[in-house]
Amino acid sequence: MSRRADHVVPDLVERARAGEVRAVARLISLVEDESPALREMMAALAPHTGRAQVVGITGSPGVGKSTSTNALVGALRAAGKRVGVLAVDPSSPFSGGALLGDRIRMQDHASDPGVYIRSMASRGHLGGLAWSTPQAVRVLDASGFDVVLVETVGVGQSEVEVAAAADTTLVLLAPGMGDGIQAAKAGILEIGDVFVVNKADREGADRVRRDLRSMLSLGERPDDAWRPGIVKTVASAGQGVDDVVAEIERHREWSERTGALGRRRARRARVEVEAIAVTTLRRRWADVGRSERLDELAAAVAQGGTDPYTAADDLLSAFTD
Amino acid sequence: MSRRADHVVPDLVERARAGEVRAVARLISLVEDESPALREMMAALAPHTGRAQVVGITGSPGVGKSTSTNALVGALRAAGKRVGVLAVDPSSPFSGGALLGDRIRMQDHASDPGVYIRSMASRGHLGGLAWSTPQAVRVLDASGFDVVLVETVGVGQSEVEVAAAADTTLVLLAPGMGDGIQAAKAGILEIGDVFVVNKADREGADRVRRDLRSMLSLGERPDDAWRPGIVKTVASAGQGVDDVVAEIERHREWSERTGALGRRRARRARVEVEAIAVTTLRRRWADVGRSERLDELAAAVAQGGTDPYTAADDLLSAFTD
Repeated sequence: MSRRADHVVPDLVERARAGEVRAVARLISLVEDESPALREMMAALAPHTGRAQVVGITGSPGVGKSTSTNALVGALRAAGKRVGVLAVDPSSPFSGGALLGDRIRMQDHASDPGVYIRSMASRGHLGGLAWSTPQAVRVLDASGFDVVLVETVGVGQSEVEVAAAADTTLVLLAPGMGDGIQAAKAGILEIGDVFVVNKADREGADRVRRDLRSMLSLGERPDDAWRPGIVKTVASAGQGVDDVVAEIERHREWSERTGALGRRRARRARVEVEAIAVTTLRRRWADVGRSERLDELAAAVAQGGTDPYTAADDLLSAFTD
Repeated sequence: MSRRADHVVPDLVERARAGEVRAVARLISLVEDESPALREMMAALAPHTGRAQVVGITGSPGVGKSTSTNALVGALRAAGKRVGVLAVDPSSPFSGGALLGDRIRMQDHASDPGVYIRSMASRGHLGGLAWSTPQAVRVLDASGFDVVLVETVGVGQSEVEVAAAADTTLVLLAPGMGDGIQAAKAGILEIGDVFVVNKADREGADRVRRDLRSMLSLGERPDDAWRPGIVKTVASAGQGVDDVVAEIERHREWSERTGALGRRRARRARVEVEAIAVTTLRRRWADVGRSERLDELAAAVAQGGTDPYTAADDLLSAFTD
């Protein structure tokens, strides 16, 4: 059977939409590899997107993100949903060993065709998560997954970006990981739509919840504003996980009813379109030999020979002349 | 005494260079406000930059970053250095209360003219730390501070960026905050030039150090590569702080000897120049009415009406036609 090369993308998209896991995996690999076929692929996927609920899961290392994601997948499957998981790792190969353990735990769902789990490395130079995650989400969305869980592995620069990529953001905390005040310092209070106090069988869980509650109520909110729920879980024992699913569903209903969902998605698309436009420009810089010039200018700035504004003007002169 | 407006920046720069703290503060405010005078200011500062050692301090909430910074300032002062501190807060006004406590601790040095401490909010839309921090560092550098400590308050997207902004990066850990494996997951092993195990009087400090040591030695390194030191401290009691200063100094010597310092600074300048160029382009988009068009395109992408690449092409057509 012969298949012409220019039919590969439409064929993959068709097979992914028909539920074929290998085609889904192949499409996400094209995203990760920044394949030249991305343009064609995104155009082919676009009409089939917008159905999945994208749920971001974030929190400091040690709060039990992987275990919680695993438990959530189970609960969502029990509710009849097809679930895609993107575990986004902003760190380097150094952490491979630690990640392996997490991924092994996820093998609970390895034989379930209604679950697709994928670890993704974020790429720094093209804008990291802002670049690859929404595209991978679009693949899963168009492939008919009802819920896409985007879990950050570790911290770093990913938490805020995950929140930006999601329709609903879960922030996980745990007792003994620093208290609620620490959550405030970490800047995660404002990105959470649902707060999960995991390891709630440990001492201090009620205090974390109390701190969270008092900090979340500090700001005045209009009547129809979202009021984030706070749920206690013991993810390793499956306790409280159905409550988390209920809160996710409550947030989806609120988001749709108030129009917040459409606004959030448009904001997200705006960032994505702008990132692609900027990257396209950078490539054009490289094409016109601006990349070497940038190296020279950077060395001059580092040595005090010029300032960054003058250097930027020089860099841009290729466009404005 | 009359002073013409177009002499304000040269005058401020001159006074800052003469050691006048109010002029330093005013210049950093111009950075934070994204003043139109920034271009002139950076050009005036450039010839006087490149002398200060920039030390980034990062770590999860609760490891004692503020206390350690405070203790470091004391030790560096005792060694006769002028010290500038930028405490960068990537989070929102929500966390103001928590931060206040940290800043109050720093008041130990409030009456010392050889110390300048400044909290800075990072601005998300212009690229956050990548935008404002290097400019504030440049102000302190040109004003004759020997060491500039850049401390992140909390986590979020700032850790990696702080490392990118520094000549030497200190990563703080503490027992009971999750072990060394957690550090690996957090992706901070590769950004640290010096590792500080703070709260070393608590149980588990030796284990954290041991874990760190074994993970850091996993990779083969060439003979002249940097081998990160691991120092135990009790910052609240001043213990071990001189060892940290010695490690910072050892890293400076190594960086200068091997040329790593110049390469790192050039890389940093490259990011900065590119960020300014991209921001300039975005402003031009707004000028030519592309900003409204971007909103329309984003809404279409969010609804599946088009894909982000086609939208980006549309956005860029204003430049390429």
